[in-house]
Amino acid sequence: MTDSSKTSAILLIHCPDKPGIVVAITEFIHKNDGNILYLDQHVDTERGVFFMRIEWDLGNFVIQREKIAEYFETLVASRYEMVSQLSFSDTKQRMALFVSKMSHCFYDLLARYECGELNVEIPVIVSNHPDLQLAAERLGIEYHCISVNKENKKQQEEKQKLLLAEHNIDFIVLARYMQVLSDDFVKDYPQRIINIHHSFLPAFPGGRPYHSAYERGVKIIGATSHYVTADLDAGPIIEQDVVHVSHKDSVEDMVRIGRDLEKIVLARAVRHHVHHDLLVYENRTVVFE
Amino acid sequence: MTDSSKTSAILLIHCPDKPGIVVAITEFIHKNDGNILYLDQHVDTERGVFFMRIEWDLGNFVIQREKIAEYFETLVASRYEMVSQLSFSDTKQRMALFVSKMSHCFYDLLARYECGELNVEIPVIVSNHPDLQLAAERLGIEYHCISVNKENKKQQEEKQKLLLAEHNIDFIVLARYMQVLSDDFVKDYPQRIINIHHSFLPAFPGGRPYHSAYERGVKIIGATSHYVTADLDAGPIIEQDVVHVSHKDSVEDMVRIGRDLEKIVLARAVRHHVHHDLLVYENRTVVFE
Amino acid sequence: MTDSSKTSAILLIHCPDKPGIVVAITEFIHKNDGNILYLDQHVDTERGVFFMRIEWDLGNFVIQREKIAEYFETLVASRYEMVSQLSFSDTKQRMALFVSKMSHCFYDLLARYECGELNVEIPVIVSNHPDLQLAAERLGIEYHCISVNKENKKQQEEKQKLLLAEHNIDFIVLARYMQVLSDDFVKDYPQRIINIHHSFLPAFPGGRPYHSAYERGVKIIGATSHYVTADLDAGPIIEQDVVHVSHKDSVEDMVRIGRDLEKIVLARAVRHHVHHDLLVYENRTVVFE
Amino acid sequence: MTDSSKTSAILLIHCPDKPGIVVAITEFIHKNDGNILYLDQHVDTERGVFFMRIEWDLGNFVIQREKIAEYFETLVASRYEMVSQLSFSDTKQRMALFVSKMSHCFYDLLARYECGELNVEIPVIVSNHPDLQLAAERLGIEYHCISVNKENKKQQEEKQKLLLAEHNIDFIVLARYMQVLSDDFVKDYPQRIINIHHSFLPAFPGGRPYHSAYERGVKIIGATSHYVTADLDAGPIIEQDVVHVSHKDSVEDMVRIGRDLEKIVLARAVRHHVHHDLLVYENRTVVFE
Repeated sequence: MTDSSKTSAILLIHCPDKPGIVVAITEFIHKNDGNILYLDQHVDTERGVFFMRIEWDLGNFVIQREKIAEYFETLVASRYEMVSQLSFSDTKQRMALFVSKMSHCFYDLLARYECGELNVEIPVIVSNHPDLQLAAERLGIEYHCISVNKENKKQQEEKQKLLLAEHNIDFIVLARYMQVLSDDFVKDYPQRIINIHHSFLPAFPGGRPYHSAYERGVKIIGATSHYVTADLDAGPIIEQDVVHVSHKDSVEDMVRIGRDLEKIVLARAVRHHVHHDLLVYENRTVVFE
Repeated sequence: MTDSSKTSAILLIHCPDKPGIVVAITEFIHKNDGNILYLDQHVDTERGVFFMRIEWDLGNFVIQREKIAEYFETLVASRYEMVSQLSFSDTKQRMALFVSKMSHCFYDLLARYECGELNVEIPVIVSNHPDLQLAAERLGIEYHCISVNKENKKQQEEKQKLLLAEHNIDFIVLARYMQVLSDDFVKDYPQRIINIHHSFLPAFPGGRPYHSAYERGVKIIGATSHYVTADLDAGPIIEQDVVHVSHKDSVEDMVRIGRDLEKIVLARAVRHHVHHDLLVYENRTVVFE
Repeated sequence: MTDSSKTSAILLIHCPDKPGIVVAITEFIHKNDGNILYLDQHVDTERGVFFMRIEWDLGNFVIQREKIAEYFETLVASRYEMVSQLSFSDTKQRMALFVSKMSHCFYDLLARYECGELNVEIPVIVSNHPDLQLAAERLGIEYHCISVNKENKKQQEEKQKLLLAEHNIDFIVLARYMQVLSDDFVKDYPQRIINIHHSFLPAFPGGRPYHSAYERGVKIIGATSHYVTADLDAGPIIEQDVVHVSHKDSVEDMVRIGRDLEKIVLARAVRHHVHHDLLVYENRTVVFE
Repeated sequence: MTDSSKTSAILLIHCPDKPGIVVAITEFIHKNDGNILYLDQHVDTERGVFFMRIEWDLGNFVIQREKIAEYFETLVASRYEMVSQLSFSDTKQRMALFVSKMSHCFYDLLARYECGELNVEIPVIVSNHPDLQLAAERLGIEYHCISVNKENKKQQEEKQKLLLAEHNIDFIVLARYMQVLSDDFVKDYPQRIINIHHSFLPAFPGGRPYHSAYERGVKIIGATSHYVTADLDAGPIIEQDVVHVSHKDSVEDMVRIGRDLEKIVLARAVRHHVHHDLLVYENRTVVFE
């Protein structure tokens, strides 16, 4: 959507719907010599909420980037009770990858990272198993094996947090990490932990969804990426996709077929997060595309 | 799959898996001068069950059609503990349509009926509302408005059963019929009542699934056709399909988008039933295509 | 997207991309007390073209609806070399349906019309065959059988044009009308004739696409709705969809499976046209959703 | 479909359709104490051709595996003019990967290889560029950079053939290898070279299909895997899949979105080839699933 050679500012906004919002925002940008590159808005008429993603070229913008948030807050946002989030296209976010034994999402994300498709830094990979250590190290990425069980969870999560802090991690991707994070951990990263669940939620939350899908005899299986919240598999959904199956597919077939879904759905979600394409409102996402 | 100008016999079979089943069945047909037109089999290795659909041309078959079931039972089925079901391609099944106020599945099925796509007889339509009476009568199909509420349900279902018996109905299609049939009613038509539910079951069973889908913020909505059993929306799934939605879609949008899913998914299920493409085993369907 | 109980104005705009366009348009609406209900814009950066669909509530709008086009042209459009098209949500467009022998698109559109989903008037149906006359008349719609062949085409098209003029037809839907319209005819209805072609164009243009698909051994078949232009099957694409097929599907199976695609894809295109969701630029459509 | 711990034999067969074929084949297996694990057959009624894939457990089979082909030919195949191909589930095929600069299919296939999903040996990778050398060598796979241009093509292809012979290569996967192989090369590997083309063939064959798709304004893009034949992009199609795009997607977006299609479609085709799920007849594939 954007020419990556130029720096642009991205605003994600939501506020109570009222006349004049679009004019107020676009005037703020235009009068200060910003060129609008992208604008998408959405009004949830039932809830009376206005949502917008707007991106503009900073080339001639007269407000310094450090001051934009303050100016926008004072001149526009405060008048409309806006909740806004400002980002810049040239800021590389720092992502931590949490993995377990399964490698498909891990390899897929790292292949995108390697070829430059994924505009992030990945300084650290955390796992509760050593299985993917070699593959991580081949790529020169730190790999920490922190095994977790019921007894040591609190203590091990402290180690994980320390690592995340050391590496200035902005957000976490659970690439089929098979542990449930504690509420305390989750609270520290609101809308900053992305999970991939191997079913079309809300069907088959929790463990062994392919087994449940098989038992129920569904003709479609799915995968869902979502932000992690305190409620297991109930956070805001970012992306979902499905594939048809038949009576011929055993649980093992579903697991195999599902892997391709999972990795694609997770990668799309990470992309939306990285590109500031999405915002969360009352446990639902607005994804601007 | 079949040249409709010839009469063929169709056998649906399941039995414990054992060596020799395919040979036994195909020999029975071949030695009696039946020409196999279609054969598909499936082994559920986990449960150790063998499934087959086989269809053969009766042109030169030496066993009279009235005797085939008996001969097959004696010579083959009994030796392998087979559960089998025999049908003939030239038998038109008699279908009753149950509708309510919504017309999309009703019109879609009747359009298929009119142009000869749906190889059935539809002698009667039952509704708890008068809304579609005129449209039914235009096509010359009997329409019975039998309004149902908690108090009169038992009694009205008796009227319905009488109608079904009078018209020699083979199976019932609930084309967005908004009433839950009583267990007693359902028991009389095992695997002979097809329902369309407006969600990708098992997500969002029961009432108002589009509202629930909206609330949960899913990115995909679905429709599921299934045989009706005593458990609400829990019967064997015949067909499912889905469509992507976004935050832009209100509940009303989902309802509208869903209509096209529902009618297509229901029509596919009816087709499978009519063509004897499917059998049920432990609440799962095997659909031969 | 819109509360249908209120009247709204809809502007479709394209122009050379320049800073300030969004502000100019939204100010025009806001300063005159119009409340923006929907705004979507798109910049084709390669061609340097700006596209917008904007819809606003006319409840308190200070400019009379008859004057809006003129005011907008003078105050905004002329300054930015805009090509714009203004419509009102309460204007019912008048649609003519052209059919032949096949009934699936015909029945599907009329079912939508009957239940109020399709916000148009359909005063007349034109066909080169009598097959669907009875069904049309049941619904009380005029049906004109105007048979066309190479010799009489010019003359018969004159009759058709007369009919369209008599009924004040705004746009034409070719619902599997099997005749190619002459260039002269097409020129009279620019971007006002919608066709459904039974392939995923540009694969398999022209006649018998399912036969060609079968011969080529494709694993997917499709349907494409597009505006008719002088070049056969080469007009701007509005909607496309596909379905998987396999080696098991004969040409007849593809024809049957394709019918469900065709009717859904055509209905979506008609909906976009009726809702003023789309504009055409250099043989490509911009479809706002 | 198969328990991988047991060895099974797989027969792919086609022949003129006649009564008795299924019995003849299944008897051959059953009488010699083979247990049928999988059977799928298909009759192309238009061409009068019978197709079958049958797989059986060799545990108690009385014919030695080296003799099965001969016995089957003598006792069954010759009587029905069958063309048959016998394989064994425990034979690992040797696959050569041809790549260029783009890494997505390369990484995806190698990730499947690493985790054991792809039941092959990959002893050698051939490229006309050095870009992926490091990544290949990390995994311990020989990488040969053989740059090809119009002048040296013949000579370089000889080098490639030598390499393939040295490594006893069974089949070749062109994972976005950007060179057209000469007819001579192709003839040496009939139905043993799998290509991925980045369009839904037959639309947009040849170079730059995403550019053409963008120009034509299609709403769907696709990918096609096929066996390479002398005619460019016209070989038998193995797998196709598509994804919806919109006017918002630039050529670069299509390229990015298409990468995920290409890698999945290619991987599915390779799987079918490796599992002996497919046979070719008159430039069309029969894919048993």
